[in-house]
Amino acid sequence: MSKIFVDACLGKETPYTPVWMMRQAGRYLPEYKQVRAKAGDFLSLCHNPKLAAKVTLQPVDRLDVDAAILFSDILVIPNEMGMELTFVKNEGPKFSKPIKTKEDLASLGSGLEVAKKLSYVYDTIKILKKELNPSKALIGFSGAPWTLATYMIEGQGSKTYNICKKMLYKDSKFLHEILAKVTCVVKYYLEEQIKAGADVVQIFDSWAGALEKDAYFDFSWKYIAQICTYIKQKYPHIPIIVFPKAIGTYLDDIYGDFDVFGVDWSTPMELAKQKLGNKYVLQGNMEPCRLYCKQETSQSIEKITNIMQGSRHIFNLGHGILPDVPVENAKHFVDECKRISRK
Amino acid sequence: MSKIFVDACLGKETPYTPVWMMRQAGRYLPEYKQVRAKAGDFLSLCHNPKLAAKVTLQPVDRLDVDAAILFSDILVIPNEMGMELTFVKNEGPKFSKPIKTKEDLASLGSGLEVAKKLSYVYDTIKILKKELNPSKALIGFSGAPWTLATYMIEGQGSKTYNICKKMLYKDSKFLHEILAKVTCVVKYYLEEQIKAGADVVQIFDSWAGALEKDAYFDFSWKYIAQICTYIKQKYPHIPIIVFPKAIGTYLDDIYGDFDVFGVDWSTPMELAKQKLGNKYVLQGNMEPCRLYCKQETSQSIEKITNIMQGSRHIFNLGHGILPDVPVENAKHFVDECKRISRK
Repeated sequence: MSKIFVDACLGKETPYTPVWMMRQAGRYLPEYKQVRAKAGDFLSLCHNPKLAAKVTLQPVDRLDVDAAILFSDILVIPNEMGMELTFVKNEGPKFSKPIKTKEDLASLGSGLEVAKKLSYVYDTIKILKKELNPSKALIGFSGAPWTLATYMIEGQGSKTYNICKKMLYKDSKFLHEILAKVTCVVKYYLEEQIKAGADVVQIFDSWAGALEKDAYFDFSWKYIAQICTYIKQKYPHIPIIVFPKAIGTYLDDIYGDFDVFGVDWSTPMELAKQKLGNKYVLQGNMEPCRLYCKQETSQSIEKITNIMQGSRHIFNLGHGILPDVPVENAKHFVDECKRISRK
Repeated sequence: MSKIFVDACLGKETPYTPVWMMRQAGRYLPEYKQVRAKAGDFLSLCHNPKLAAKVTLQPVDRLDVDAAILFSDILVIPNEMGMELTFVKNEGPKFSKPIKTKEDLASLGSGLEVAKKLSYVYDTIKILKKELNPSKALIGFSGAPWTLATYMIEGQGSKTYNICKKMLYKDSKFLHEILAKVTCVVKYYLEEQIKAGADVVQIFDSWAGALEKDAYFDFSWKYIAQICTYIKQKYPHIPIIVFPKAIGTYLDDIYGDFDVFGVDWSTPMELAKQKLGNKYVLQGNMEPCRLYCKQETSQSIEKITNIMQGSRHIFNLGHGILPDVPVENAKHFVDECKRISRK
């Protein structure tokens, strides 16, 4: 059965512009909170294929989005490389022992060996392949090496990334070693997700905007491009989506073997279309807070649809859905994307 | 006596490109930490003209920057409008009673009455006019109405600005009322700073990047432009610097009666030059973490100097200096800007 989402990723004609939302399996859904409470902490939910599959399917059932995205967290990679990870309430993820020395890096697992440890993710995908309506696509994903490395080096989220940047400016070789090691795991991780049944994969570079332009291409994009090349050579039929957040001023230099470029809301869609619309399908980019108001949601969808006239497009938010959005407003977004783009 | 910094702001020829640093009166300086400890909390230092003047002068004495920037905080405005403000260690500023209703807004002071209450700021400027070397410029400043309003509505810093944005989408009229009230205070506040002796004024829109493009011009830039018009009509000889952070993808639509556009580090200098270099002097934009490494600092200054060849320029960082930068590296930055641009 043909999947409209996969068709759209590959630039084929579709009856309407397909739609999904970043963080669509999340706290704005009461049924998610129920499962989450049952699972215990956040990481336990990621480790439990049955429950992870369940929450992955919830937004498909509730909102009729065109794609499910695997429920997991980007930090399972460093965690399985051997870094102890906790999620502290209201503070976010923390690694107890951030990478400081070559010995720290050497002590971490690498490549396929780590990718194999992430079997609970592939088990989740296998369950989903049976349970997901075959008209819907299943998106697998990974964090980009740079974004993963920021957590591995800072030990947690950061406003200034000053530990990473001190390393970048004072010992760029070591930072490249860390990034190369993570890149190798990401390649195998995405490959295993595809083998387990992912129809599409997305690479999230959430902290792309932490780097100035030249540094971005040297320390982040280069590795994303390597991963895309690896996957495309082995799995040319699997669409790849990249989502480097907040680098709207760097679009002129984007290159690589992927299919869909995810546009965040700080990058005007006109600009993304002008710079990348003839090379890639564009995904995005409604400002997520517009979901608080149905009228604003509809207006924004109309506007994006008009801009993307004649270009290849997938609807999404320009960042993750927030926990206090009413479910009916999320449903309104999905319905309106389909209605308006079908016209 | 002619001030090279003021000349540069007005687009006149100067023997070298003048330089200062955002947050140059700050924790990276041991002498600042001494005064800060003596003053007690952060707000007490802002309220004490003698000590505020002292820390304002420290980076001029230590680094020989071309301009001093008044030591204060952008949040003194809402504070003097009547909002109780505290600075919680490691958590930043907090307002005990954020604006939620029309009554909350009506209860706050307005216009010239509030501006007059900020007399400790003007007293600081008066001390500085006597003590600052006349070859150096004194920069006064204010937060932009939007940035101030985010704190007044959220009650503190925010990652998502979801309270402000809920208001923006559901009751934009009320948000405009808040912004108009703040704008009126900012106009008089900057005017009083000029009357007290500020040579230049800068408007910081630190949270500019929280708004998507259309919303930015409607809810933030419009008010900044109003302030610029007001000041320029009365004080045409006083240069105005604007610094809207992280809106590099919106530069095509920037307009208004100001002199210098501050470029943050996420906006490539080439792009800023291309879009705005023929209309405004550009200030910026070295990535602040480069200060950790002298070699990277020099390289970056060379690069920016080359890019800005033939355009009007003032050196600065692309964001504030961080507390853990060695003082000698900051000195290296200032010296190198002068040396390299003099060639």
